Amino acid sequence: MAKRFSPDKYVDGILAGDRVMLSRAITLVESRLPSDQELAQQVINQVLPKAGNSVRIGITGVPGVGKSTFIEAFGNYVIQEQGKKLAVLAIDPTSQRTGGSILGDKTRMELLSTNPQAFIRPSPAGKSLGGVTRSTRESIILCEAAGFDVIFVETVGVGQSETAVHAMVDFFLLLMLAGAGDELQGIKRGIMEMADAIAITKSDGSNIDKARVAKAEYQNALHLYPMAASGWLPQVSTCSALKQTGLPDIWGTISDYLELTQQNGFFQQKRRDQNLQWMYEAIRQGLEENFYAHQQVKQQLPGIAEAVKTGQKSAFAAAAELLKLV
Amino acid sequence: MAKRFSPDKYVDGILAGDRVMLSRAITLVESRLPSDQELAQQVINQVLPKAGNSVRIGITGVPGVGKSTFIEAFGNYVIQEQGKKLAVLAIDPTSQRTGGSILGDKTRMELLSTNPQAFIRPSPAGKSLGGVTRSTRESIILCEAAGFDVIFVETVGVGQSETAVHAMVDFFLLLMLAGAGDELQGIKRGIMEMADAIAITKSDGSNIDKARVAKAEYQNALHLYPMAASGWLPQVSTCSALKQTGLPDIWGTISDYLELTQQNGFFQQKRRDQNLQWMYEAIRQGLEENFYAHQQVKQQLPGIAEAVKTGQKSAFAAAAELLKLV
Repeated sequence: MAKRFSPDKYVDGILAGDRVMLSRAITLVESRLPSDQELAQQVINQVLPKAGNSVRIGITGVPGVGKSTFIEAFGNYVIQEQGKKLAVLAIDPTSQRTGGSILGDKTRMELLSTNPQAFIRPSPAGKSLGGVTRSTRESIILCEAAGFDVIFVETVGVGQSETAVHAMVDFFLLLMLAGAGDELQGIKRGIMEMADAIAITKSDGSNIDKARVAKAEYQNALHLYPMAASGWLPQVSTCSALKQTGLPDIWGTISDYLELTQQNGFFQQKRRDQNLQWMYEAIRQGLEENFYAHQQVKQQLPGIAEAVKTGQKSAFAAAAELLKLV
Repeated sequence: MAKRFSPDKYVDGILAGDRVMLSRAITLVESRLPSDQELAQQVINQVLPKAGNSVRIGITGVPGVGKSTFIEAFGNYVIQEQGKKLAVLAIDPTSQRTGGSILGDKTRMELLSTNPQAFIRPSPAGKSLGGVTRSTRESIILCEAAGFDVIFVETVGVGQSETAVHAMVDFFLLLMLAGAGDELQGIKRGIMEMADAIAITKSDGSNIDKARVAKAEYQNALHLYPMAASGWLPQVSTCSALKQTGLPDIWGTISDYLELTQQNGFFQQKRRDQNLQWMYEAIRQGLEENFYAHQQVKQQLPGIAEAVKTGQKSAFAAAAELLKLV
């Protein structure tokens, strides 16, 4: 096991912007050892007053949309042209199973991964979705305390993790390919309606016209959506990571969103709601972990679940039966 | 308190299609009394093998879209032209607070409420969303056992109940007004992507052209959506309850959907998944009810929640603190 330090040493290192200490603190957060978990909580509670001063941006899109290339280009733009410090985190509970992984291969982000103003952390290995989202949310706090003022949370647009990411970011950016209207792209239903902005990627060369058409189509479709509680109308842009075009537009959209929502109070309210939501979520996870780890429940669950699935037992009778076991 | 019978008496009555006994069994399901709850579970478990032979259709739309009028017209069509027996249930956890209520005023469904082939039951009073959805789901089982082969579950498209309804029906129909693209209509985000079909209501008189334009717009927008797991592409129709037009089209869409999904197995799989989902949901509800009813938790929750909201305490530390109390 790697060496552990006192909570103060982690805290001092993080607040001084020490990337090695930041990395080690994130390792604590990702650890399953109860002693590490306790240490992590001490560190987090100490740095918490220094966290929160960032823009948290969720970025999603299916494989093939060019997510790594976009993050590399947009990340460098944010650092160089906007003078920001950028942390890139990932949520990908499937990466261990499929072998492939987002952010797993840092060589796909050559410039960003060697930039001293950037901090890149792949999705933690061997965890459930609940575990990954918890680690990522706590890592956001640590990165903010270390002075990173833009946080990208990357996720792959095919699973459940988007809802979790949406609940931990200020702004949700969906990457789409031109021609999407015909191809349907495999994006999970419901994700489009979460987006605060859509960026049509790979808008270069012979793709430019297609991207322009797609932009108009999506902008029309988004107009049909109900108004968001933020008062914000989602925007569509085109961009090319290859040609470095469209990136200022996307940053401009994010800035407009922040201006609007910080003025009308939605930004602050959303953060407070998210905090509370995560508390209730953590309570739920704790209760369920204890319940499903119970010996009797473990033994009887498979048989009862089968009876429910096939309609031999009602869902509520089955639940009552299982709840009586603990 | 009303008289209670033996489980067998309820079961025999329901299976014989006795509407009074069906009503009384639903009253048991809606009761908070533990003795009623136990009796209800016995009845449900006994009729369960006879349930399931229906098409469960969720119908939603904001106030003003003409939901009651649509259900009256479409319900009568389904009974008279398709020879079905129809039960109409409602999920509206807000109806007690606002005074107004869906299905509360049966006079808005004059024909249907006096039709011997129809059974109408308003949303149960004085219950939480969890309580309402549970009652409704159990009522579906009872209605099916009583021989109703089409079930409408009505909900108002502004709250959280749509997700719950979506998880208990086979087909989800969204009612929209023409001109929606401009007015945004107050439908909650995410609901449009749940819809298996959209019906543009009040397509009559001077409204016909607007409805036709709206239909084309929504059909285009739906094409941009990701493909549903069912393999089904959501359809858009126009209809008029007043002129009795468009109703066969909507029934045709539902029939097409059923044919497709029963052939590719999605229908059966969805039902099995829904059963299991409700079991896990009922377990979650049971665990949380016990937890939040705990004296210590009740006392400490408000202060801890406030500290989490304002960022003084991390969500996970707070959850751990509260979980230790029980």
